Amino acid sequence: MTEWPDPESQSRKLYERGSKVFAGGITRIQPWQEPFPVYAARGEGPYVIDVDGTRRVDLLNNFASLIHGHAHPAIVEAVRDRIGLGTAFTMPTESEIQLAELLCERVSGFEWVRFSNSGSEAVMSAVKAARALTGRSKIVKMEGAYHGSYDYVEVSLDSSPTNWGNEPASVPYAKGTPKGVTDDVIVIPFNDPEAADRIIREHGPSLAAVLIDATPTYMGMTPITQPFIKAVQTATRAVGALLILDEVISFRLHEGGAQTLFGIEPDLTTLAKIIGGGFPVGAVAGRREVMKVFDHRQGRPALPWSGTFSANPVSMTAGRVSMELLTPAVFARLNALGDLARRRIDETFAAVGVEGHASGVGSMFNLHLTRQPIEDYRSAWRTPAQAKAMFALQTRLVKEGYVISTKGMGFLSTVMDEAIVEGFAQALGRALRAGALDLVA
Amino acid sequence: MTEWPDPESQSRKLYERGSKVFAGGITRIQPWQEPFPVYAARGEGPYVIDVDGTRRVDLLNNFASLIHGHAHPAIVEAVRDRIGLGTAFTMPTESEIQLAELLCERVSGFEWVRFSNSGSEAVMSAVKAARALTGRSKIVKMEGAYHGSYDYVEVSLDSSPTNWGNEPASVPYAKGTPKGVTDDVIVIPFNDPEAADRIIREHGPSLAAVLIDATPTYMGMTPITQPFIKAVQTATRAVGALLILDEVISFRLHEGGAQTLFGIEPDLTTLAKIIGGGFPVGAVAGRREVMKVFDHRQGRPALPWSGTFSANPVSMTAGRVSMELLTPAVFARLNALGDLARRRIDETFAAVGVEGHASGVGSMFNLHLTRQPIEDYRSAWRTPAQAKAMFALQTRLVKEGYVISTKGMGFLSTVMDEAIVEGFAQALGRALRAGALDLVA
Ligand SMILES: Cc1ncc(COP(=O)(O)O)c(C=O)c1O
Ligand SMILES: Cc1ncc(COP(=O)(O)O)c(C=O)c1O
Repeated sequence: MTEWPDPESQSRKLYERGSKVFAGGITRIQPWQEPFPVYAARGEGPYVIDVDGTRRVDLLNNFASLIHGHAHPAIVEAVRDRIGLGTAFTMPTESEIQLAELLCERVSGFEWVRFSNSGSEAVMSAVKAARALTGRSKIVKMEGAYHGSYDYVEVSLDSSPTNWGNEPASVPYAKGTPKGVTDDVIVIPFNDPEAADRIIREHGPSLAAVLIDATPTYMGMTPITQPFIKAVQTATRAVGALLILDEVISFRLHEGGAQTLFGIEPDLTTLAKIIGGGFPVGAVAGRREVMKVFDHRQGRPALPWSGTFSANPVSMTAGRVSMELLTPAVFARLNALGDLARRRIDETFAAVGVEGHASGVGSMFNLHLTRQPIEDYRSAWRTPAQAKAMFALQTRLVKEGYVISTKGMGFLSTVMDEAIVEGFAQALGRALRAGALDLVA
Repeated sequence: MTEWPDPESQSRKLYERGSKVFAGGITRIQPWQEPFPVYAARGEGPYVIDVDGTRRVDLLNNFASLIHGHAHPAIVEAVRDRIGLGTAFTMPTESEIQLAELLCERVSGFEWVRFSNSGSEAVMSAVKAARALTGRSKIVKMEGAYHGSYDYVEVSLDSSPTNWGNEPASVPYAKGTPKGVTDDVIVIPFNDPEAADRIIREHGPSLAAVLIDATPTYMGMTPITQPFIKAVQTATRAVGALLILDEVISFRLHEGGAQTLFGIEPDLTTLAKIIGGGFPVGAVAGRREVMKVFDHRQGRPALPWSGTFSANPVSMTAGRVSMELLTPAVFARLNALGDLARRRIDETFAAVGVEGHASGVGSMFNLHLTRQPIEDYRSAWRTPAQAKAMFALQTRLVKEGYVISTKGMGFLSTVMDEAIVEGFAQALGRALRAGALDLVA
């Protein structure tokens, strides 16, 4: 039997076919993996089975979107029924009301909801909504925070020591980003209350919104601190801007989201990932006085917004079933499993005697080949050599049968248990013992 | 049995529930319908059955996305199988290669493809790709053309005689649109070769892209003319900008898309709707020298782009099956049905003696309560009174059992036949005979 990355493997054959029709051989950049990606054939609960028949524990879960793992029976059953009845309509369906009702019941700050097809669309529309409500055009975002592909929120996503400046500079992400975009985006450092307060107030009169994430991915999923929440919230209110909380990832922490867990009071929240139950989804939610920008009943809305597949009944049905499975007890168990994972990772690094630790909160972890605590984007930033070492570790783990991201991130699912976490810790130990990481490609 | 818009109808009850959780009572603006929308329960081929059990011919097909109508057996079967194997993976799957291969085989200008979750995402990334490749920031678009929710391409989407200017002015769409956005968008009139040539050349050195649609929705889906194609293409090349053809709608015209049918040679094409087989989808396709902006294999791409649910195997599988069903013979039959529909609509207006006609091409039609030909956005533009009259006609048609858009648009599917078209013509006749349209709400 051939196995990735064997040149005779089926993954290699698919990669060759893919290279004929895709820039870079693949159509999404996330799964990229030297020398070529592993191709998935199917998923079963916590496992992903690749096209060569190799079964691995999937700690990525389509980047934190499959909180119940692959092909959860309750979701599969609900969706199979739905599909025979039609998958998309111009007309509204009850399924979108049901999912919105569930969300509004769980989160006190959600009065009205609007669905989209992705987190990127949701964030874009939240920013546009803030502009429509305030008549202002600038936004504040956190250095290094990922919020999807809207160019405004990509600013300073991958800034580095050569261009990030003393105070965070507005660094364009894509080549050719219009100057109008970088001019309209102000950057603050994560969890720095003093700087956030000062910068938000300085740009106050032109600020439409301050966009934050409570557990930013590229900052090790380190949780937001209370002083930062207070500073950002107070300054944002003081200048009359809107606070947008991006919960595309952090909504997996608690039935009321990170906002309930950490006591954040955003004006608008963006959601995606887990609320779609494994199907494309996004949402903006908030209080009526804000969400009214989308309302068409008093004449033309301040922000008309539609999308062909938004709120399609398949995503809505799968999302509702997925969310119903997430009771407080299930969240508690999942978060405890995350605590265990981070503890066992730390213990494994210590036992092997390699510098390293896990950051993160709840069901999320991020491996680091350093004991320096990850506090913000700059402390999480890796030199090319450090990035390469993590990548070597990730490659070894994939060969050991555990899929994490090339940056060392993992997201647990409710169908995982202590044995899977322990298996991962053991595999990590073997991978670390296999020798110098900075030398392996 | 109650029926929409009866106050006792199930649609009314859902609308009341929806009003508690959605701005405007619904989460998409398209299906809005006075006094409240019809709610769909299920679809069967050419029919949509609402929550009160009323069956209607669905001439909207989720705004041109369901080219095979509802729940086509071949698509349902393929997707049901797929769902049990997992619906989303971080890893790539063969399904995305298969759909991309099919697209590249059919369209000579498609060498590489990149998938997204919606047409809006595809258009946004195509614009960003053009900027990344040229290092320029401005784009040209056609007055009144809809390209999704990216703010740049929304400019002048609903401009009106009070603000459209002598030459098309760049009119913001949403409230609070940044000045940087309107400054970077130049507007041309549709099918006006002289103006297009002049305006494109005038802004030449700062133009990243010229974005066009061959059958723009809000211009009555009137086809693009050869002189306009020539003028736009020549000027765009002359100034070193990229030509982006938005085929989100027009790809339903021909197995090679509108570009094959009309002989357009875009650098980038955006797709969505029918290529997802009833599931969320979008794509950017083009020649390698352009698509390489997405390639990560020579170091960091000029435009890194990912999306959590992009290229998920459900959308890819449904899309492939849907596209495979679309053989040249099927396209020919569908387009002939569209010719018949527009002819029978025109004959019906004439027979009843009401001023009106149908515009459009292929399987698309748009009713107008005027005999004035629809040539561009300005000739398609309706006064509030005219819009209200069309809306009254649409309401009557819904009551007659035929769903079209409130602007009078319809999109046929391959599971429709001459009898359905004839039924629609008869219903239109009855609706027109029912009395003065401008007086009905
Ligand atoms: C915090 C955050 N916001 C927004 C997004 C964009 O969501 P999507 O990939 O659905 O467009 C992501 C995706 O990973 C995310 O992590
Ligand atoms: C021509 C055109 N472009 C882009 C879009 C946006 O596509 P989506 O609704 O999938 O975002 C549409 C949607 O109707 C469209 O008609």
